[in-house]
This record gives sequence, structure tokens and C-alpha cells, in this order.
Amino acid sequence: MRGRRGLLIILSSPSGAGKSTLARRLREWDPEIQFSVSATTRAPRPGEVEGREYYFRDRATFQKMVEDREMLEHAEVFGNLYGSPKKSVVEALKQGIDVLFDIDWQGGQQIRNSLRAEDTVSIFVLPPSIAELERRLLTRGQDRGEVIDKRMARSRDEISHWAEYDYVLVNSDIDRATEEVRAIVTAERLKRSRQPGLIELVRDLNSEFEERSGEHAPAEDSPPNR
Amino acid sequence: MRGRRGLLIILSSPSGAGKSTLARRLREWDPEIQFSVSATTRAPRPGEVEGREYYFRDRATFQKMVEDREMLEHAEVFGNLYGSPKKSVVEALKQGIDVLFDIDWQGGQQIRNSLRAEDTVSIFVLPPSIAELERRLLTRGQDRGEVIDKRMARSRDEISHWAEYDYVLVNSDIDRATEEVRAIVTAERLKRSRQPGLIELVRDLNSEFEERSGEHAPAEDSPPNR
Repeated sequence: MRGRRGLLIILSSPSGAGKSTLARRLREWDPEIQFSVSATTRAPRPGEVEGREYYFRDRATFQKMVEDREMLEHAEVFGNLYGSPKKSVVEALKQGIDVLFDIDWQGGQQIRNSLRAEDTVSIFVLPPSIAELERRLLTRGQDRGEVIDKRMARSRDEISHWAEYDYVLVNSDIDRATEEVRAIVTAERLKRSRQPGLIELVRDLNSEFEERSGEHAPAEDSPPNR
Repeated sequence: MRGRRGLLIILSSPSGAGKSTLARRLREWDPEIQFSVSATTRAPRPGEVEGREYYFRDRATFQKMVEDREMLEHAEVFGNLYGSPKKSVVEALKQGIDVLFDIDWQGGQQIRNSLRAEDTVSIFVLPPSIAELERRLLTRGQDRGEVIDKRMARSRDEISHWAEYDYVLVNSDIDRATEEVRAIVTAERLKRSRQPGLIELVRDLNSEFEERSGEHAPAEDSPPNR
């Protein structure tokens, strides 16, 4: 990695567009990518584990963290508070560890504004159609009809913010979309500006050239290197 | 593709760092990527075909093309003129076809300055070491010792321009480097700014939301979409 800073990956999409699956697959591909775990004041659902899905906090504790500027972003959604504790993220980036945020547009905006822009890359995932989005929400089978309606309204709001993201992909095929997210992360890591260690590598190459020169005398004429 | 403009891909590296192999593999991966063919005043080498490796032109014809601003870039290298005819490239980009330039830093600079910056993406390939670079030049077996020396001097010059490129990769393993170049092209195509057709897609999604709303009445309370 040659001393690069970690990448903060913001992944947003309406519910049902495949964001969670993409996030999971990205981590399977590179287990060193750290998943940002949010804090929330809502009650745990069956199967949810403290520190894995969320840090479950009471409202007073959560608000104290906000006051102490320990949150990278936070928002109230349907009466519950959600937020991303800052400390672990900043530490990870310093150590060259990439951190993935599976987050909505409001959280994405706050993060982009509270961290160095050159550390973040944002990806928005669109569904191929609204019918497909609704179908995916219905097949999950965990929500009642009116919940679906509310989710759909929220999805529409989420989609309206697509143009704030660096990259946009349409999830028509989950395997293809997975490849695309991996490609974005791979490419972002290869940006010159993200690889401060290259200066050292080129210095080493130049030293090699120095050692080499003088071994042979230069020639007069030769074909071009093109 | 949804009406995007083509991408002009500038690929540079010192001779022997694997640039030609990477360019070939990129085209095998996506045969729709067009290879820019240079014009040159030098004589064809055995096996070279007009219009495939180069357009072979006499000096007067070449200079007329430069005067008529038909060259995207040109340079004199070891007594021969080399250049990229502009027309076919501009046409391809307009049609949404990506064009690959396997070119040195001088050509890369001229191209970046004569086309819209948002159309170009530049990639520099570094060798893992100078010993490895020399080994690859020697195994080609087509050059004499003094030619190698001249190529090595030129390589050093080429490497000194690495910091002018958007992406930099180290070719320690050709399969890995191939994956990296593909990832860069895939990611660049997914940049929001490169997909004007997304506006239409989102408009279609919104129409679907409009048609859908009214089918069910909204609910009072539901879990957040987070």
C-alpha cells in the first residue's frame, strides 16, 4: 500500500436497490475494508447484535456524543436518532484502512462536509425501475403494505439526490453491479493523488538509473521508443 | 451506454514496462475500444501494415497535415515525425466510442491540452525496478546493446513525467496490472459527469413513482430506511 491514506467510501441508494448486498460483497472481496457501524437510539430488532448492526444507545447518551462532536454525521429518522461515531473512522483512515459507509444522502452530505474531500468517494446505486424496487421490497416479506408505501416515498426522496455523488450505477444485475463497485474502489486506490508512496518508488528507480549509467557508452543512432 | 461521450484513454510508460501488452489486453476485454493509429515519416519495419501499426506518410504530407491543424499532437523523435490524426478521434468520442492512446508523455501533454479535459483519462505504468525494465528490453532481443542504452535514457526521461497522470500503477504482475487498467476504465465510465443519459433514466423513475402514488394510502408509522 506504500503509506496511502484510507478511502472513505460512501454508498447510498434507495431501499431495495441492492446497497446492502453490494456492501457485503465488497467486504467479501476485500475483508480489510472496514464497515462503519452506526449508533442508534432505536430498539434492536431480532437478530441484531450490539456493535455489529448498530451501537444501541439511549437518547441522552447519543445527544451527549453529538454535543461532544463525536459524531461524523447524525439524523433523526421516524423518531429515532442515527449517527456515525467519528473516532474509529478517522483512526482507520490514518492507518490506511478503507471505511465503507452504507448511508442515506443526508449522512453522505454531512460526511463529505466534515472530512477532507480527497479522502472520500461517493457511489449512488439506482434501481433499473420502480416496479423492480417495489418487487424487491415485497419479496423481503418483512414489511406490511403501508410500510412499503412509506419506504417508497422515502426512496423517491433518496433518488432525487443521485446527482450529488461521484459515481452512479444502475443495478440491473447484481453481479455486474458488484464488479462495478469493485472497479471504482480499485481505480480510486490507483489515483496518483492517493499514492504518496510513489515518490519514494520513483526515487529508487532513479537511483537504479544512476548506478547503471556508465556501464555502457551511449550510442549515436537508434530507433525511437514509440 | 445511454448517450455518453467517448473516453480518451492516455496510456504511457517507459519502453519495457508492459504498456503495449496492457493496451492489447484492454482491447481484447472490450473490442469496442478504438486504438488510435499514429502517422509517421519513418520507414515501415518488417511486418508493419499501413493503417494498423502506423499511417506511413512522407515528410511533406505530414507537415501539410500539421499546418492544416489535422494533428492532435506530433513530435520529432530521433529524426522522424510522429503524430495523431485528429478527425477520427473526435468523431469516435462524439459517437460514444472510447479511444486508447499508447503514447509518450509529450504526446499525452499535447492531447490533454487540445481536447476537453473531462473527456480524457491518463494512466502511467511504472516498472517495479530498472533491472526488470532492462531485462524485458533485452529479452525482446531485437535491439543491440547501444540501442538498449538509448532506450534506457529515454525511459528515465519518460518516468520523470509520472506525476502528470491521473492514475499510476506499478506493473509487477501483468495480470494484476491488466485488472487495474480495466478497473480504471470501468470506473471512469461510471462517473456521474460522464453519464448525461442518467437524467432521462431518473425522469423515467419519477414518472413511475407518479403513476404508482395513489394506489395505496400512506401509513402513519414505520421503521426507518437505514
